[in-house]
Amino acid sequence: MSEYKAPVRDMRFVLHELLNIDEHYAALGLEDVNAELIDAFLEEGAKFAANELAPLNRSGDEEGCGFDNGVVTTPKGFKEAYAKYVEGGWPAMGGDVDFGGQGLPSSAGIAISEMIGTANWSWSMYPGLSHGAVATIETHGTPEQKDTYLPKLISGEWTGTMCLTEPHCGSDLGILKSKAEPQADGSYAISGTKIFISAGEHDMAENIIHIVLARLPGAPEGTKGISLFIVPKFHVNADGSLGERNAVACGSIEHKMGIKASATCVMNFDGAKGYLIGPENRGLNAMFTFMNFARLGTAVQGVAHAEAGFQGGLRYARERLAMRALSGPKNPNGPADPIIVHPDVRRMLLTAKAFAEGGRALVYLISQLGDIVQKSSSDEDRKQADGLMALLTPIAKAFLTEAGLEAANHGVQIYGGHGFIREWGMEQNVRDARISTLYEGTTGIQALDLLGRKVLQTRGEALRPWTKRIHKFCEANAENADLKEFVEPLVRLNKEWGDMTMAIGMQAMQNPEYVGAASVDYLMYSGYVTLGYLWAEMAAVAQKKLAEGAADADFYKAKVATAQFYFKRILPRTAGHKGCLEGGLDCLMALDEEHFAF
Amino acid sequence: MSEYKAPVRDMRFVLHELLNIDEHYAALGLEDVNAELIDAFLEEGAKFAANELAPLNRSGDEEGCGFDNGVVTTPKGFKEAYAKYVEGGWPAMGGDVDFGGQGLPSSAGIAISEMIGTANWSWSMYPGLSHGAVATIETHGTPEQKDTYLPKLISGEWTGTMCLTEPHCGSDLGILKSKAEPQADGSYAISGTKIFISAGEHDMAENIIHIVLARLPGAPEGTKGISLFIVPKFHVNADGSLGERNAVACGSIEHKMGIKASATCVMNFDGAKGYLIGPENRGLNAMFTFMNFARLGTAVQGVAHAEAGFQGGLRYARERLAMRALSGPKNPNGPADPIIVHPDVRRMLLTAKAFAEGGRALVYLISQLGDIVQKSSSDEDRKQADGLMALLTPIAKAFLTEAGLEAANHGVQIYGGHGFIREWGMEQNVRDARISTLYEGTTGIQALDLLGRKVLQTRGEALRPWTKRIHKFCEANAENADLKEFVEPLVRLNKEWGDMTMAIGMQAMQNPEYVGAASVDYLMYSGYVTLGYLWAEMAAVAQKKLAEGAADADFYKAKVATAQFYFKRILPRTAGHKGCLEGGLDCLMALDEEHFAF
Repeated sequence: MSEYKAPVRDMRFVLHELLNIDEHYAALGLEDVNAELIDAFLEEGAKFAANELAPLNRSGDEEGCGFDNGVVTTPKGFKEAYAKYVEGGWPAMGGDVDFGGQGLPSSAGIAISEMIGTANWSWSMYPGLSHGAVATIETHGTPEQKDTYLPKLISGEWTGTMCLTEPHCGSDLGILKSKAEPQADGSYAISGTKIFISAGEHDMAENIIHIVLARLPGAPEGTKGISLFIVPKFHVNADGSLGERNAVACGSIEHKMGIKASATCVMNFDGAKGYLIGPENRGLNAMFTFMNFARLGTAVQGVAHAEAGFQGGLRYARERLAMRALSGPKNPNGPADPIIVHPDVRRMLLTAKAFAEGGRALVYLISQLGDIVQKSSSDEDRKQADGLMALLTPIAKAFLTEAGLEAANHGVQIYGGHGFIREWGMEQNVRDARISTLYEGTTGIQALDLLGRKVLQTRGEALRPWTKRIHKFCEANAENADLKEFVEPLVRLNKEWGDMTMAIGMQAMQNPEYVGAASVDYLMYSGYVTLGYLWAEMAAVAQKKLAEGAADADFYKAKVATAQFYFKRILPRTAGHKGCLEGGLDCLMALDEEHFAF
Repeated sequence: MSEYKAPVRDMRFVLHELLNIDEHYAALGLEDVNAELIDAFLEEGAKFAANELAPLNRSGDEEGCGFDNGVVTTPKGFKEAYAKYVEGGWPAMGGDVDFGGQGLPSSAGIAISEMIGTANWSWSMYPGLSHGAVATIETHGTPEQKDTYLPKLISGEWTGTMCLTEPHCGSDLGILKSKAEPQADGSYAISGTKIFISAGEHDMAENIIHIVLARLPGAPEGTKGISLFIVPKFHVNADGSLGERNAVACGSIEHKMGIKASATCVMNFDGAKGYLIGPENRGLNAMFTFMNFARLGTAVQGVAHAEAGFQGGLRYARERLAMRALSGPKNPNGPADPIIVHPDVRRMLLTAKAFAEGGRALVYLISQLGDIVQKSSSDEDRKQADGLMALLTPIAKAFLTEAGLEAANHGVQIYGGHGFIREWGMEQNVRDARISTLYEGTTGIQALDLLGRKVLQTRGEALRPWTKRIHKFCEANAENADLKEFVEPLVRLNKEWGDMTMAIGMQAMQNPEYVGAASVDYLMYSGYVTLGYLWAEMAAVAQKKLAEGAADADFYKAKVATAQFYFKRILPRTAGHKGCLEGGLDCLMALDEEHFAF
């Protein structure tokens, strides 16, 4: 994807025209943040992504990371690009102003994250993981911890990691084994092995601050006996200078299917000095701050790979000549027609486009909710936004990464056999996308979170604000003939969604395993309807602009046409998921474990 | 997949119990072929696949092929395994007895192809492509050509290739440019560049026989001006010994997403001496012999990757401990339950299993039809089998490779983050599977072949024998209470399939582009129903065996349970495809090419 061009026009559409981000900032009392500032970020971010990061995407994949006796080397150009990123002040956008950050709301940076990630997802993992460490220390750190670590993490001079996973446990953190022994000086000696630590070791920054989950001696078993620790790679002296190396080292890096330029490290903690952050045994709660952030970041990855699949596919579909249109030649003077004339090629392109643009709307909306949670002075608003964010985050994470993977595969498919060849970058897009449905909680884990924890544990209360919002939109536009094609199916699906939820709830009361049987189809269904609603909203905005005679009519017409495509050719997939879900539990549990294979 | 174990029990079930292969051979008058012989092949093939090929699968992927100045080196052990394969007489199974072959029908080797391919798809490409060259020479060669090339191709001492694709054309062979200039000695000088030539050059065999598509001077434009040529790497002297090197050379090998141990060659023909095979300008017709064969071979690849995803996923799901079952601990003495207790993990496993076993039934059935086409003395039987084979081949190729790719992805997903790590082999299974929906005609091309050429051009005639067969099965079992859960939905879908076909035909009369708009959803729908029918047949066989009190009851119970899973949790996907298909054409064509992106 060395030819990535950030879809700035569409980003502006979502931020300004769909989400009215200017009014939103005003309502939050954020006087310094406005449309002009956001647009300036978009322009600069687009340049940085296209000029500095996209050119390193394929070379980074080819070269991968080096490992030699604990030292990790990032691919050529990565370090220099990171230095420019720090120099440009990008890492500090969202950081606390008391520690050198710009204090911008989350929505101000979301498009930048998307651009950077689409241009080069591997590269984006290095600064991306720092956000989690920053958020954790900002929220749970002592004043001293904040003073010690935040300024350099926020400036980007240092980076951070989140050390959760161990060889025997990922999703099931309750069984983790790493230990923290209290020391006489109030610190802790951390021992254990952590795996899959992104940016655990690298050559881009002078220090790395690890946030590590471990158990105190005698801590309760399970998730209620896990504490959180700060473990710096190099100790930090009282004057802020770097001291000795801590007893934490990278044991090896993983050889992976994709995101090969992102160093995925095995980290060995060998009595490393660490500092408790937050209360004892409450580490997993503190970690949720970060996990929601990371899940939204991974949802962005879904959008990124959909956009990359779309842009790459479109480029080839315009250039490649093969066959004649079934209705007669469209390029009569050439040897064949460009493949973009063929309906099935268009179907694949439009699918990728609809996922990218619809996913963008969903992710940016969640980041707007995040602003309210972070910055609103109204308890009620914060509570509402938090609830909706909790509902939409697993949908966005799982549905958009599945959609991104599908779109990336369409990108390959459009190229035919050439899509399988590394040179074109489309297969890398699939390989890089493949991790997104796995890490930060697999699709299955997100689906259990959505259906089990969020929806059913609240007896549907968590779902209601969203279905109500959809209902209100449909009601408000019931008489709008131009929107009928969207509103009618949406009314039906919104009701069906509620009914289906109720039916699952009834079944789950009989047998809790039913939740697991229904979860992934339920999540996918929820994702299709959620994106359907956002596409209807976008079509409504575009139609309004067209009615007002706005310039840029082609853009708005394309928006309406893509919404029509989504409703006609994507949204009917809900019927398949509903049918499969209703297939129920029994057929999944019938086979004894030893009778799966003979 | 170094731990591949051929599913011999299931292969025997399909061949003997579902397809009654013994009676079938008797009916064809093939006295030397019977169940015992087939079983002996299965046992020996299973050993060869597990012991010789599976251990080279991951090392082959890691090492890839080497290229140095026209010389291609296959990964360590490939050459030796090939020598054993030749020594074992495997290449000769299907070959003409007049040229050293065993003359076995196609169904006798299909399970062997599956085993070899599942153990190591890359390796299987080398002998696999030879079949196409053999079939082409057997069918279209002169007696002299047969004498010269067949014995050593059939023994496996030489291998063959099919040289179709050029840099500017793959699916659209009508625009190919390679040239054949007649020479005074009756041969032709072949010039041009061919790409994506599997096994175009390698170190396993002493000679390589290329079958090449090229144009004679003054040939008509398009597909009706293409002729077929035999171009040996080394000329063959009158006494059968090898002569000088021909002017054909490998210019480079491709760097690909997967099947890295299969050499995908750019072949440069620089006035190479070639020999016309078949009539002038009728090369593409001759090529169809091969293409159907190759498409069935690629359908096998779908089964292979589904089986590999299933076997790998099952192994991990039994071992990996994470979380407790929602209904309470199933492994109370361990720290967590094995993940096979979780319904969604089972859903993924059963999906892979249902695709692998259902796909196996479909592929073996097609090979049985192939036997009839090849060996039957009845014109009517041959014609019928040929017609059904023509209908089912694009379904099997496209649907099973899509299903195989899905199942391979489930294999990764079951492993969570570990699935992304090369060590486990699951990500390789996805990368290797990815080519299968692309080569030998993409899914889109197969779908056009099915819906446009096969179904609509015959006004549905080509579809009828198959829907009629399904109808008859349903009718015959209408009163069978044990089969009701299969027969009822099948009756409904079989009718819906016909109605949908008619509706598409009506639309296509208005606008031929509608075919392209409907084709892929139509193909996927057809695939789900086709596999549904085969699963119902398999359930019927299994229930009969259970009623008879057969030993091996667990096997038959698992078969019924998997059929139930397929009907409950997979077959409802048809509703999604039907809905999307009915979304129609207009929304695909609305956007002008220049308005896809802004």
